[in-house]
Amino acid sequence: MTRVHDIYPSDKVSLREVGLRDGLQLVKTFPSTAAKERWVRDEYAAGVRHFEVGSFLPAKTFPQFVDVRDVVATIAALPGAHGVALALNERGVNEALASGVAEIASVVSATEEHSQANANRSRESAIENIKRLCELRDASAHKPLVNAAISMGLGCSIVGAVDPKEVLRLTEKLYEVGVDMVAIADTVGYAGPKQVGELTRGAVKIAGSKPVCVHLHDTRGMGIANASAALDEGARVLDGSLGGLGGCPFAPGATGNVVFEDLVFLCESKGFPTGIDLDRLVAVRAILKSEMPNEALYGGLARAGLPRGTKARAA
Amino acid sequence: MTRVHDIYPSDKVSLREVGLRDGLQLVKTFPSTAAKERWVRDEYAAGVRHFEVGSFLPAKTFPQFVDVRDVVATIAALPGAHGVALALNERGVNEALASGVAEIASVVSATEEHSQANANRSRESAIENIKRLCELRDASAHKPLVNAAISMGLGCSIVGAVDPKEVLRLTEKLYEVGVDMVAIADTVGYAGPKQVGELTRGAVKIAGSKPVCVHLHDTRGMGIANASAALDEGARVLDGSLGGLGGCPFAPGATGNVVFEDLVFLCESKGFPTGIDLDRLVAVRAILKSEMPNEALYGGLARAGLPRGTKARAA
Repeated sequence: MTRVHDIYPSDKVSLREVGLRDGLQLVKTFPSTAAKERWVRDEYAAGVRHFEVGSFLPAKTFPQFVDVRDVVATIAALPGAHGVALALNERGVNEALASGVAEIASVVSATEEHSQANANRSRESAIENIKRLCELRDASAHKPLVNAAISMGLGCSIVGAVDPKEVLRLTEKLYEVGVDMVAIADTVGYAGPKQVGELTRGAVKIAGSKPVCVHLHDTRGMGIANASAALDEGARVLDGSLGGLGGCPFAPGATGNVVFEDLVFLCESKGFPTGIDLDRLVAVRAILKSEMPNEALYGGLARAGLPRGTKARAA
Repeated sequence: MTRVHDIYPSDKVSLREVGLRDGLQLVKTFPSTAAKERWVRDEYAAGVRHFEVGSFLPAKTFPQFVDVRDVVATIAALPGAHGVALALNERGVNEALASGVAEIASVVSATEEHSQANANRSRESAIENIKRLCELRDASAHKPLVNAAISMGLGCSIVGAVDPKEVLRLTEKLYEVGVDMVAIADTVGYAGPKQVGELTRGAVKIAGSKPVCVHLHDTRGMGIANASAALDEGARVLDGSLGGLGGCPFAPGATGNVVFEDLVFLCESKGFPTGIDLDRLVAVRAILKSEMPNEALYGGLARAGLPRGTKARAA
């Protein structure tokens, strides 16, 4: 049992609430630091243990993440809570390491075309960057986990269909350079459950004993079906955002991440206990509504409540 | 090959647009007859072939279905289009038979409690009623198909969890009394994909060569995931409503049927060709919006459009 398995046990599902990072990526107004801390604390009280908390990106361009260190500290103070922050270059990585965050996330595009257009570098260079991140991690005092997302892994806003063999080749490389986890991302919500299931199966095989994360967007309404397929094929880490907060830069008007609370319901219905109290979780949406009144929130559980006879789940 | 297989071929998926019946069940304002006819014709032009068109219920209580005969006639005039209408008592059945509708739908509740509370009769009496419907069908000139929905088949608004063995027992009885198809209905959207898959597998086994329909509501965001599970287990007839039109009498504020256009995208993504042009289908939502401006419409495809590189599907 290595440290990654303490945080992402292979015999249960870990659900990561990414609203504070991916959810806030495109919003026009954003919550105060105090509201972010209530958001984290209230979700923690509901049973959530994995949080993506923000990005170490230039604060001038992304002012919504200027207080990322405060959110990292809030989570570090909660027993058993685990925080993840995004860092895309060496400055960001050094800042992330200095913040003491428990996990650093990086990204490589699934297609060369998207890599060049979005990050102005090749996929090979992006993987070199992640290798360097792993070396800095190894040389650090607290040695955070490192995860690498393969963005556009199930469809690309530039070239359309993505060859799954390419994604599996990148997956293999990423585990080789030292990441603890690869996250297969359907960044633009192109995939259906068949494709997600097949790619997950391949990635799980490559990952061996290491975890595989599947990061889904609900752009075309397939989010929960895709999550179900990923679970069926052995993914045990799934991302979602409360209320499906967030948008997609490549699909204006589209929804963001798969709805976190519906993901909880899905997992429970499939016999994967999450330890999350759905009523308490849904109540946290009030913070998002009051801090970002113009952002659309989605989700079935919030509208309809739990089915009759469903036992309240222990936090 | 019997007639039911001409209409619901066992080697392909048939998607039924139920917006004109289930979608209109609870709306406050409803479309004009002319708008319903455009709705049908435009969906037909997009490639839709199966329509639930209305109910033979008392027009005083359900004025939205007063023009059901006109919609039946509109569909009968379109080559290869198939119309279904609901009829719950002998008067309704006789009116449905007289209308020449191609299929008559009836209902039995999965639980005794719901049957008594909702229809004021036992499930046994409901099945007797359906047996009588089949006899009237056999004695009729044009012999429409008969389908029987098992409402609350995956969870009951009165008792909560439903014993799948009871649903399978009812399924068996319904095929015995002569129905052409049983529709397993998650009327209140309680189920997840595991439960839907398991019940579908059992029903498909009982049905033998006859089709099984799965009728899902998206109340808790599981609609598409549940449809995917039903397809995986052999259901080849699925219901949905354009824009997810409709509500649920037992869950105020909840969404209605699973979103038809997202269902089309799901089927195509799983390799089940539907013959439906998604762009043309999504355009039909304009009729619903202009006729029922206060009704919420849902769906990912309508927000985001087709993924880049997706070929337009031939109607």
